Amino acid sequence: MTDTVILHEYAPSGNCYKIRLTAALLGIPIERRHYDIMIGETRTPAFLASVNANGRIPVLQIGDRFLPESNAACYWLAAGSALVPGDRFDHADMLRWMFFEQYNHEPNVATLRFWRAFIGEDALSEAQRAQIAAKQAAGEAALALLAQELATRDWLVGWVPSLADICLFAYSHVAGEGGFDLSAWPSLEAWIARVRSLPGFIELSA
Amino acid sequence: MTDTVILHEYAPSGNCYKIRLTAALLGIPIERRHYDIMIGETRTPAFLASVNANGRIPVLQIGDRFLPESNAACYWLAAGSALVPGDRFDHADMLRWMFFEQYNHEPNVATLRFWRAFIGEDALSEAQRAQIAAKQAAGEAALALLAQELATRDWLVGWVPSLADICLFAYSHVAGEGGFDLSAWPSLEAWIARVRSLPGFIELSA
Repeated sequence: MTDTVILHEYAPSGNCYKIRLTAALLGIPIERRHYDIMIGETRTPAFLASVNANGRIPVLQIGDRFLPESNAACYWLAAGSALVPGDRFDHADMLRWMFFEQYNHEPNVATLRFWRAFIGEDALSEAQRAQIAAKQAAGEAALALLAQELATRDWLVGWVPSLADICLFAYSHVAGEGGFDLSAWPSLEAWIARVRSLPGFIELSA
Repeated sequence: MTDTVILHEYAPSGNCYKIRLTAALLGIPIERRHYDIMIGETRTPAFLASVNANGRIPVLQIGDRFLPESNAACYWLAAGSALVPGDRFDHADMLRWMFFEQYNHEPNVATLRFWRAFIGEDALSEAQRAQIAAKQAAGEAALALLAQELATRDWLVGWVPSLADICLFAYSHVAGEGGFDLSAWPSLEAWIARVRSLPGFIELSA
């Protein structure tokens, strides 16, 4: 018997999208439960007690077990598939890009998208406004590093698409909504087109 | 023939220590190359071109290949060992804690340690000083979440120590240097003592 897989999510989030995209590429059916983070639906006592004590989505529910952290959820879905390299170095190198995504890319590229396209600059706090310049510079550095890597090869790890590409695609392809001009990096735009051409690909809005 | 494994590091960094600790627990010999991040030795053209284009340590060199990102380096060292669960859910759950470490824990607990114990509060920029309160609150939330989890079991994943414990131990056990009072969380202090009792354990200063 196979456990039901349920994605607890806020659909416009790139972190949630990367899980749906991984499942779609692998043909794994998932159910979806929506939470409105704009009105605090992931900070309720019920959510904290039963879904994620960290008060965040996405969370992937597998049967009666809960798995927070978007990249860990992608890993669970893709374990044993062609999206996870079997080679020891390439496997670790895929994780290297996924940690880079959460440390250098998401806190800058995704946060500025959230602030600018979802909250609106006028509604930001003083503390948030004070971080914009640093996040813009750090996000540009992360995108430039990706572009530099992708100037010499088609995919981030080895010669085939892996979870590294899926996880970094999620927020890179909507970086424009955060105020980043992707036309500065043709190799990044070409890689975005390559990801979009993968069999089973779905858009963020799907 | 086994590749030589070289850790490019700044020894007082918890991110570098977690790699040395993983290697020590597994009995894997590594060479060490020191860089002084306080004088920019990881931002030189030579370092950027040959070790890590992201200008950061640690980087684990395996033969002639370079693996940045501390948790990816730990994963490469521990692949196939008892520190990485074989069960599909537990394996992903271990990675969940490692992503949590890089997203919720390290940018707060480690950064405040670096600012307070290495740079000194008087030498911080205005932009850094403006982030202290938020980082203090977020770091306390991350430590409290760990303490809550560890109040009900000995290790973060399953019933045995895994990379999740090693990677979160690295900065948790020196959180006091960042201005966090660990005596508020007895379950965290007990877990720190359990990690210290693992066969082969080495201290950060070793």
